Amino acid sequence: MRTYLDCFPCFLSQALRAARMATDDTEQIKSVLDDVGRMLSTIPLSSSPPESGRRVYQKVSEITGNPDPYQALKQKSTREALAMYPVLKRRVEAADDRLMTAVRMAIAGNVIDFGPGKAFDLNTVVEETLRRDFAICDIRAFRDALNQAESVLFIGDNAGESVFDRLLIEELNQPVHYAVRGKPIINDVTWDHAVAAGIDQVADIISSGSDAPGVILERCSPEFRAVYERSPLIISKGQGNYEALSGRGGPVFFLLKTKCRVIADHAGVAEGDIILKKARGAEAKKGGP
Amino acid sequence: MRTYLDCFPCFLSQALRAARMATDDTEQIKSVLDDVGRMLSTIPLSSSPPESGRRVYQKVSEITGNPDPYQALKQKSTREALAMYPVLKRRVEAADDRLMTAVRMAIAGNVIDFGPGKAFDLNTVVEETLRRDFAICDIRAFRDALNQAESVLFIGDNAGESVFDRLLIEELNQPVHYAVRGKPIINDVTWDHAVAAGIDQVADIISSGSDAPGVILERCSPEFRAVYERSPLIISKGQGNYEALSGRGGPVFFLLKTKCRVIADHAGVAEGDIILKKARGAEAKKGGP
Repeated sequence: MRTYLDCFPCFLSQALRAARMATDDTEQIKSVLDDVGRMLSTIPLSSSPPESGRRVYQKVSEITGNPDPYQALKQKSTREALAMYPVLKRRVEAADDRLMTAVRMAIAGNVIDFGPGKAFDLNTVVEETLRRDFAICDIRAFRDALNQAESVLFIGDNAGESVFDRLLIEELNQPVHYAVRGKPIINDVTWDHAVAAGIDQVADIISSGSDAPGVILERCSPEFRAVYERSPLIISKGQGNYEALSGRGGPVFFLLKTKCRVIADHAGVAEGDIILKKARGAEAKKGGP
Repeated sequence: MRTYLDCFPCFLSQALRAARMATDDTEQIKSVLDDVGRMLSTIPLSSSPPESGRRVYQKVSEITGNPDPYQALKQKSTREALAMYPVLKRRVEAADDRLMTAVRMAIAGNVIDFGPGKAFDLNTVVEETLRRDFAICDIRAFRDALNQAESVLFIGDNAGESVFDRLLIEELNQPVHYAVRGKPIINDVTWDHAVAAGIDQVADIISSGSDAPGVILERCSPEFRAVYERSPLIISKGQGNYEALSGRGGPVFFLLKTKCRVIADHAGVAEGDIILKKARGAEAKKGGP
């Protein structure tokens, strides 16, 4: 997905929020705004938003000297999600359609996103998402792909959300690679937060090898790309990965809650909608990674 | 009022909205974002927001070649407000407290503001504002000042809103100067739109002599400043004039609906609140202009 005009004010808003997370120094925060403002003219409309997101958040870290402004929030998100896990797990186990319920759980977790800057209450969102209608629901194709596949690549999105992803991984009955970001970026999940969520107990964690908030394949490590290319079924969580992978085809299913109008428009749904969407041209390939 | 950190993403959002009003050419709109992005580092936190607003909207006009992107919207706002005028006038005349009802009408009109980019339905807002509690209501001081004054300077804000201002002017029972912007800026009221609203029938229209979306006195004409300095009672409508005049003292009453968090915080109220607020140190002076 390319960058839209509406993304530019959003880049600046994100820079401001991240800078405030990183420091209380008003002068430094103003410097971040100055530098990101100047950066905008170097971002072409043809670039992928996570590519620019990477540069914006790098600038925040460079100026404030804080390499991981969302560290405390990521830990808190994981703690809160883990506290909910036992109850949610029982609900999945008691459901008539366990896979579908677990898919909903995974989407509910996608609200733990400090990029778009929307306030949320986790408990409320989970309940709302379990009842909400899907705007796009390619569950039949997903079941078919899952039945044919012999392994799954699950591309994680945010810290805390990984606990919800785990509920879905546990229903896939397949060997799973769980991809995390290579370095801290916004509140995206990295290796340590995936382990804290217990993902290491249910999947092989791999790094994307990149610090972009979405798996732009050209920025990922050869190891990650090899797994990606060989995977017969890929689950892509969240907006950043949708921005990076949408339009590239492949056996990808996008699982997300839309949190901005640009992405909602791109997907042909309304802001706030939940979707399980098969990538155009997506086909499950035979064989494991 | 100075510029706050939150103003910077807002400047860029305003530039985007105005550029889209001015042209359909994506390349031009991107150029506006590029240039306004670069401009941000030249805006100090000590400057007044209308000072920067002026530069932002000038840049939009310069790049798109459209000197007045909001012209059609301003005309539409005035037409819609004029259609409501007879009914609203009868409601003021039938009210137990005509002045208070007219004050509410004038605040209701302040929703016609295309700067902050909030959607509104005029009929709904008028009804809501007539019932809503004031967050700050210095009506007693306002009545006293009005009783002592021998003339009023009424600083207008937006086109269309002027029709609502007229309802209040008609209840003041004082000679009134009605100030408009010197040149088109956003959807702010200029001479022609004030005349279209019928202001010329109830007040002497004067120009601020400035194209800033708020009366920054240093940017106004000597003629306007002379009227300002001599006025025993000044009614300042809307956010832009609040940003320009707040903290300067004088016999000023601010009349507005807060439409952004920065201004709401500055005034010590919530976003969306309506206020009739006496300027700190405001005193009604004797004598006319």
